[in-house]
Amino acid sequence: MERRFEGELQDLKSRILEMGGYVEQAVEIATQALEERNAAKLASVHPLERKINHAHVVIDNACVEILARQSPFAADLRLIIAIIKINTDLERMGDQAVNISYNAEHYLADRKIDMAQDLTQMGQAVRVMVRKSLDAFMRQDIVLAQQVLESDDEVDAFKNKMFQGLLPFMKQEPQSIESALDLILIARNLERMGDHATNIAEDVIFACTGEDVRHGGQGRE
Amino acid sequence: MERRFEGELQDLKSRILEMGGYVEQAVEIATQALEERNAAKLASVHPLERKINHAHVVIDNACVEILARQSPFAADLRLIIAIIKINTDLERMGDQAVNISYNAEHYLADRKIDMAQDLTQMGQAVRVMVRKSLDAFMRQDIVLAQQVLESDDEVDAFKNKMFQGLLPFMKQEPQSIESALDLILIARNLERMGDHATNIAEDVIFACTGEDVRHGGQGRE
Repeated sequence: MERRFEGELQDLKSRILEMGGYVEQAVEIATQALEERNAAKLASVHPLERKINHAHVVIDNACVEILARQSPFAADLRLIIAIIKINTDLERMGDQAVNISYNAEHYLADRKIDMAQDLTQMGQAVRVMVRKSLDAFMRQDIVLAQQVLESDDEVDAFKNKMFQGLLPFMKQEPQSIESALDLILIARNLERMGDHATNIAEDVIFACTGEDVRHGGQGRE
Repeated sequence: MERRFEGELQDLKSRILEMGGYVEQAVEIATQALEERNAAKLASVHPLERKINHAHVVIDNACVEILARQSPFAADLRLIIAIIKINTDLERMGDQAVNISYNAEHYLADRKIDMAQDLTQMGQAVRVMVRKSLDAFMRQDIVLAQQVLESDDEVDAFKNKMFQGLLPFMKQEPQSIESALDLILIARNLERMGDHATNIAEDVIFACTGEDVRHGGQGRE
């Protein structure tokens, strides 16, 4: 029984890793497609999101089933609760990748505006956050999880830089306002993906230590 | 023991309701403050968010503790998992309310642009979604939860209407681009709050029926 439980936990962790791989791919494809102004490539985020949604439901059901059957406690219970939360964050990252594809229509067609470099750098920073948060989860590595929390500022700085570049451009080129607005919303989508990776890192720390690092740790009664 | 468990579940549900009340207040205050262009009122969202964050940590800890001690199964287990998820959604709604306060700087100072009516209507629609999703949770009412899922389109329609009104305005009044952008981001914040209320309604349906209505219910293996 004990060994079977261990196997089930390993299986759940592998599924989370696989799902996280789809999320990484979705970020990579979306930012590459924006760089290349390639609408067909951007649309290929959709089948990836369907894989993410499928994994989401499978993992959720498996967690409920394991909780019901094994009644885990202490570290095992915390791990499964962390998986339920990480699963939700990865699913919402898939939503954000799809939102990027919906928000890009005008930008793809407007050659007056070029933010390829910023988008690629910001996308890269988000992918590194996703990868590190999942590595931290797999290895139960608190130090790495802490690094993810720190790198959220970097992603926010990319977003602010894009906003600051786009505002004067919008004033000078009112006919490009729609495409600039696309980029502002896309930068927000990427920023939100970074926030989800931060949530994952917080859940890893909770699973490893039982400590709640959110909101400065307040809230115990 | 059984009676104590029932009492603990009731206590958890009351805490979620109280937390949801803070979220409703935060939406109301934020939209009223925008209507009145009242920066001080808008800032009062922050102490509310701290209450939401406090509730978030307390509820999360209580759920872990009950799962460890009571090893619930079937409907009770699904209810606690739903509470863990609803708790996360309410906490993120608090974040969105605070984001509204951060995104309003230019709009508050720019009398050229007036979207008070649209903002108030959209805020009202979001508040109704939050209220109904929590009523559905308290009463375990699937029909009401289903209504919440349907009303998400209404909130999205408000956002689209605001976007469509703001684009030509930005072209005509380039000096008001920052304040128009504030409104676009605020409309997105409100839209995301509606999305979180939708997530809560889905969790209520799952808790009541064990059925997963997300992603068209695919994903079982």
